Amino acid sequence: MTEKFAPTEIIVAKRDGHELTDDQIDWVVDAYTRGVVASEQMSALAMAILLNGMNRREIARWTAAMIATGERMDFSSLSRPTADKHSTGGVGDKITLPLAPLVAACGVAVPQLSGRGLGHTGGTLDKLESIPGWRAALSNDEMMTQLEDLGAVICAAGSGLAPADKKLYALRDITGTVEAIPLIASSIMSKKIAEGTGALVLDVKVGSGAFMKTESDARELAETMVALGTDAGVKTVALLTDMSVPLGLTAGNALEVRESVEVLAGGGPADVVELTVALAREMLQAAGVHDVDPAEALADGRAMDAWKAMIRAQDGDPDAALPTARETEVVTAGSDGVLTSLDAYAVGVAAWRLGAGRSRPGESVQAGAGVELHAKPGDTVRAGQPLLTLHTDTPERFGRAHEALEGAWAIGDTAPQPSPIVLDRIGG
Amino acid sequence: MTEKFAPTEIIVAKRDGHELTDDQIDWVVDAYTRGVVASEQMSALAMAILLNGMNRREIARWTAAMIATGERMDFSSLSRPTADKHSTGGVGDKITLPLAPLVAACGVAVPQLSGRGLGHTGGTLDKLESIPGWRAALSNDEMMTQLEDLGAVICAAGSGLAPADKKLYALRDITGTVEAIPLIASSIMSKKIAEGTGALVLDVKVGSGAFMKTESDARELAETMVALGTDAGVKTVALLTDMSVPLGLTAGNALEVRESVEVLAGGGPADVVELTVALAREMLQAAGVHDVDPAEALADGRAMDAWKAMIRAQDGDPDAALPTARETEVVTAGSDGVLTSLDAYAVGVAAWRLGAGRSRPGESVQAGAGVELHAKPGDTVRAGQPLLTLHTDTPERFGRAHEALEGAWAIGDTAPQPSPIVLDRIGG
Repeated sequence: MTEKFAPTEIIVAKRDGHELTDDQIDWVVDAYTRGVVASEQMSALAMAILLNGMNRREIARWTAAMIATGERMDFSSLSRPTADKHSTGGVGDKITLPLAPLVAACGVAVPQLSGRGLGHTGGTLDKLESIPGWRAALSNDEMMTQLEDLGAVICAAGSGLAPADKKLYALRDITGTVEAIPLIASSIMSKKIAEGTGALVLDVKVGSGAFMKTESDARELAETMVALGTDAGVKTVALLTDMSVPLGLTAGNALEVRESVEVLAGGGPADVVELTVALAREMLQAAGVHDVDPAEALADGRAMDAWKAMIRAQDGDPDAALPTARETEVVTAGSDGVLTSLDAYAVGVAAWRLGAGRSRPGESVQAGAGVELHAKPGDTVRAGQPLLTLHTDTPERFGRAHEALEGAWAIGDTAPQPSPIVLDRIGG
Repeated sequence: MTEKFAPTEIIVAKRDGHELTDDQIDWVVDAYTRGVVASEQMSALAMAILLNGMNRREIARWTAAMIATGERMDFSSLSRPTADKHSTGGVGDKITLPLAPLVAACGVAVPQLSGRGLGHTGGTLDKLESIPGWRAALSNDEMMTQLEDLGAVICAAGSGLAPADKKLYALRDITGTVEAIPLIASSIMSKKIAEGTGALVLDVKVGSGAFMKTESDARELAETMVALGTDAGVKTVALLTDMSVPLGLTAGNALEVRESVEVLAGGGPADVVELTVALAREMLQAAGVHDVDPAEALADGRAMDAWKAMIRAQDGDPDAALPTARETEVVTAGSDGVLTSLDAYAVGVAAWRLGAGRSRPGESVQAGAGVELHAKPGDTVRAGQPLLTLHTDTPERFGRAHEALEGAWAIGDTAPQPSPIVLDRIGG
């Protein structure tokens, strides 16, 4: 078969700051998936895209080309509307766990195709796999049945959706090209559009614990993704949310499930509840459901019922005891005062090093490992009072976790200005 | 073995515009040669270097790290001084062929380790292989003996010198990262420094037929290489020379050998003679030989004698008839006037397409293929007069060669300003 382009002419065009044509983008994404464009060539192109950028047309076409490499799902046969949510990843971000059953309890189906964690941010599937018996892999039929019957499914994304993205993501991960906004946006949106959700709410994190460290980068990513979704016929809204401090009081797998269940039981940390309800409102509104208050569904136990049904449907036991780590160590405050900061990235790295995360795809994680917080910025603390508890099965990991936490918090005289969780809303 | 760095931290540092440390450079070049840094990672780094640059210290260290991956040669046991020449490559650039025997005839040994052509510029070995019997591969012992006895050798570079460069060049060739000045300079200079020549003259081409299209790029490359050579103890000088028009009247393999022999016989095109003598003067001067005039050695037949001895020593027959192409086509002038321009790149591509060059390493080339010029800019032409003759064994190639030549020349009323061959001299 004669190829339409040579790989180098496309690399050189982007290297020299030119726009790629629709034809060039269609070809290079497809040819990479077929193995005609070698991974050496795609990594050079990814670096050129990272450094020279792509405009909105190029990003939209790149996304469409990635979708075209795989299958598309279709939820139009369901009796209720669908809404999905995607978070760009943060520390202690367990929101999907209470959110999916909450939205389902309000009458909107949530098809959450999730991934595993890599680096300092956790993965939704890793968290749920700490529940005894629960399984992540569902067939398409099982997924549709569960969505129709229960309204919520959180499961592993199959390999059929946007296979180009899977291949490209693994390449970017080893070549220093993860942080390219055009590639992040197209990676996320190609899977969400191919998945076929009717509405999509994006939780774009900003701050030390997020991929996007600055609000301007996060805003650019959010605007890019909202435009991509909207152009593809998916009702898309983004919230910019704070990730300078960990979300809630836990970072880890079973630790975060426990906290999520507290939220579903009507308790839990205020920030987790606030963000869960805010995202649920956006999902319901985007799906066209305006007459149900998710705060009520959380308070009266309907969300908890949906959670238990969802876990049971995937062979998990929602009432079983969750695994705990074999060893713990407590970190205490060095002085009296007010906790003025607590760095999300440092806590994320500590939880990762304690065994909650993995360094390379396929590594196993510890269900019980992680970090528990006993105070958040604004709280008064006393010298000697526990600030953090570190959990792990393998105590030789404590040393490197302590190192990650050095200088990660400050104790001062005056409470910091309370900062909102939701910083802005884009689209809709 | 524990590695000192992770590949991504070095890629990310250069991606984000930082200088690489000596340790990072030493490690990444060595680890790439060992296969610890994957080619996907090196191509992303090469693109980041191309777009973000390297400073002089980084380039010098990169060059030294490439040399350290292989062996070094030593010509200090020879009874005469050594001087080598490197051209950055152009169309019709057969200068090495008359130059090496000319300089040898003047008492300086010339160890020319050459390569094969790729793309629109020819390769010295491809040209010499059109001489019946001639062989490019010599052992180190054969090379030293020939240098001592005859003073000139042109042969294939062994794989022992800077193997990192060989691997990296092949990667750059397929990933759109050839045109990075730091990588071009370190590629050329790592081989020349490892080769152990005492003096080096660089012919840095400028213009449409060269890698460097602008004088400022060519000057930057020349200055970078002169600094690298000088710092490594090699007496190094560079000439910036014009490559907007083909050099001489031929582009091809046997065609260029024929023209080189004309020059050695005291004839040949004026520009080829001028550049050959200019480069010979620089090589002699850099090697400390100040009392011999190369123009005389060319005129009185000493250079021709050295050529014949050199060809015979490598089993070639300097008196044998050279191969000719099976088919020719003539391109004629469309109007009366003065030829005002003749584009080097177009002629190079035409010769390549006619079979003189290769598209990928290892392809064979046609000895007789190429382009013969019947006029150069400044010459008066008449409508219907032959401008070019195209030569090939495979007449189906004529069409694509004609396409390459569309718009490649102009005929006007007034002769263009004559432009010098040597534009500037750097270093020394």
